[in-house]
Amino acid sequence: MTQTAAPICEVWRGPLAESVHLGHAVICDDTGQIIESWGNPDAVVYPRSSSKMLQALPLVTSGAADAFGLTSAQLALACASHEGAPLHVDAVSRWLADLGLAEPDLRCGAQPTRDAALKRQMIKTDDSPCQLHNNCSGKHAGFLTLGKHLGAGPEYIDPDHPVQVACKTAFEEVTGQDTPYFGIDGCSAPNHATTMHGMARAMAFFASAHKKSGTMANAAARLTAAMIANPMLVAGEGRACTELMQATSEPVALKTGAEGYFIAILPERGIGFAIKAADGATRAAECATAALLVRLGALDADHPATLRRMNTTVTNWRGVETGSIRPAPGLM
Amino acid sequence: MTQTAAPICEVWRGPLAESVHLGHAVICDDTGQIIESWGNPDAVVYPRSSSKMLQALPLVTSGAADAFGLTSAQLALACASHEGAPLHVDAVSRWLADLGLAEPDLRCGAQPTRDAALKRQMIKTDDSPCQLHNNCSGKHAGFLTLGKHLGAGPEYIDPDHPVQVACKTAFEEVTGQDTPYFGIDGCSAPNHATTMHGMARAMAFFASAHKKSGTMANAAARLTAAMIANPMLVAGEGRACTELMQATSEPVALKTGAEGYFIAILPERGIGFAIKAADGATRAAECATAALLVRLGALDADHPATLRRMNTTVTNWRGVETGSIRPAPGLM
Repeated sequence: MTQTAAPICEVWRGPLAESVHLGHAVICDDTGQIIESWGNPDAVVYPRSSSKMLQALPLVTSGAADAFGLTSAQLALACASHEGAPLHVDAVSRWLADLGLAEPDLRCGAQPTRDAALKRQMIKTDDSPCQLHNNCSGKHAGFLTLGKHLGAGPEYIDPDHPVQVACKTAFEEVTGQDTPYFGIDGCSAPNHATTMHGMARAMAFFASAHKKSGTMANAAARLTAAMIANPMLVAGEGRACTELMQATSEPVALKTGAEGYFIAILPERGIGFAIKAADGATRAAECATAALLVRLGALDADHPATLRRMNTTVTNWRGVETGSIRPAPGLM
Repeated sequence: MTQTAAPICEVWRGPLAESVHLGHAVICDDTGQIIESWGNPDAVVYPRSSSKMLQALPLVTSGAADAFGLTSAQLALACASHEGAPLHVDAVSRWLADLGLAEPDLRCGAQPTRDAALKRQMIKTDDSPCQLHNNCSGKHAGFLTLGKHLGAGPEYIDPDHPVQVACKTAFEEVTGQDTPYFGIDGCSAPNHATTMHGMARAMAFFASAHKKSGTMANAAARLTAAMIANPMLVAGEGRACTELMQATSEPVALKTGAEGYFIAILPERGIGFAIKAADGATRAAECATAALLVRLGALDADHPATLRRMNTTVTNWRGVETGSIRPAPGLM
C-alpha cells in the first residue's frame, strides 16, 4: 500500500518539512467514476468510523427507524463519532430508555469522555466512564433499534447476527464491491474493508441519493441530511467534522475514522471523496480533507476552521510559533 | 525524504496491515562508518529530544558540571525527557535552588505532567502545571548551570547566547557535520538539523567514548553512564526509554525525540543508531528501536517490555484483541 501512496500532508518546523504523511485519496462523481485521485485507488483499507453512515443504512431501509419514530438527531447520532459530551450521552441514554433498554445492553465498551469539562468533573468526583461515553454509543443504539425491530438476540456485534449481516449487505451494495474481509473495530463491531475507490463510490452514492429513487437511496439521503442538520451530534465542540461542516459554503457531510480515514459527501454536486493517511495519522487526514474541500470550492481557505486544519500553526509550551501543518503541494 | 524512506512498522487489524510507517534508520560503528541502514542515511532531520545528550556536552566539557558538583542523577536529568512525576519535579526544583535560581528562571514553558497519578491529583486540587513539569526542565537546569558558569545572561535559549553557541559547536563536532539550520523546539531551545548518518555517528561516538581520550570523549562517556545508571530519571514509569533500558541484556542508553525520532547507544559494542519515522509517529519509532535492539542481540524478543513495543497487542474498549503493532519485516 505504501509504495503507491502519495504525499498528502507536511509538518514544517523552521525551514524543514520535519515529517511527511503519505496517503490515498479518491473523488467520485454520481456515476461512481473517479474524477481525481492521489495514491492508489485500489488500495484496500478499513474505513473504520467513516463507514458509520453505511452501517446505519439497514436501520432505515428495514423500516426500524420509522417504526421507532427516530428523529433526524437520532439518525445523526447513529452516524456519529461523538466526544461523549453531556449532549451526546443524554441523547443516547434517552434513546435506549425509549427502546426499553439501558447502558448494559450496549456492547461498545466504556470509553473516557473526550469532553474536557466533563472529563475534569468526572475526575473530581471519582466518576468512571460508561458505555454511553463511548464515541460509538449512537451507532450501537442504532444497532439495538434494528435488532429489536428484527426480533434478533442481544449480541448484535457478532458478525453472524442479523444486524451485522444486514450491515455487510448494505456496505457491499453501496461500495459496489464484495468486501474481502473485516476487522474488529474499537467498539467491537465488524468493520468491513473496501478499496479507496469503493468507499469514494459509496460517498458519491450518498451525495446523489436525494436525486435517486429506491429504498437504499432514500435511506442514504435521509442519513446525509441528518448529519448535515446536526453537526454537533456527529462529533462535538472543536472537532474537525463539526467545525468543517459548520464552515463549508454549501451543505457537506463529513466523517472521520480511526487510523487516518476521512470522507466527505457533497449533495449539491453529487460527489463524494475518501481519504486514508497510509500511516494512520489523524492530523494528515484532517488536513487533506480541508485541502480537498478548498480545492473543490466548497470551503473558504481563510475560514478559521480551515486554517486550523490545513495551515495549522504549531506553537510550543511558551506559545512561540515553531512551524505549521500544511497539505502536500499536490493536493492544492 | 519520503521517497526513499523504507517500511519500519506495520499496524495490523485482522488480516490487513491497516497502517504502515516508513522511516530512516542508521547503525554506525565506533569509526563513524555505517554498519547497516534503512531508508536514506543522508536525510536531514531534527533529532529533537534525541539530541539532549549532545546539548548536555558543554555542561561537562566547560567544567560547569564539576564546578557545581553535579551528580550522575543530575547529568541524567540534563539528558531527560521526563514525565514530570514528583521524582523529576522535585529533583529539578532542588537543582535550581542549589544554583540560587527558581522556576521563573526557566524558559521551557509550563507543560502538564504526564504522570497519571499527579495529573489526577492536580485536577482535583485545581493546581496548574509549571515549568518544572515540562519534560525538558532538566535540560534547562543544565543550560542555566552552564550559563551561570559562563557568567552569561538569563535568556539562555537565544540562538546567539553563549550556552546555545556552545551546544551548536559540540553538536557539529560529534555529528561530524556542519548543521544546515535549526528549528525552535517545543521547549523554545534551538534544535539543530543533521543527517541520519550524522546522528548515528554521534551516537557511536558516545558509545565508544569511554575508550577514547579527550575532553569531549570524557564528557560523552560520563553522560552515557549517567543515563544508563538512571533510567527512571531519563523518562519515567511505563515509558519506552525507561522500560527498554531496564530490559536490555547489556547496558544501553536510549532516548526518544518528538516526531518519531529515537536513538540508542551501546557502549559494550561501541555502536549507536538513530531512527526517524518519516511521518513523525512515536509508535513506529519505539517499535523499530525495540526491533533493532533485538536484531543486534541486546534485547530479548520475549521480554514484556519488548513485546509492548514490537509486538504490541491492540485491544479495544471491551478488551478484545483487534490487532497488533509490529516491525516491518525488513527490520527483523
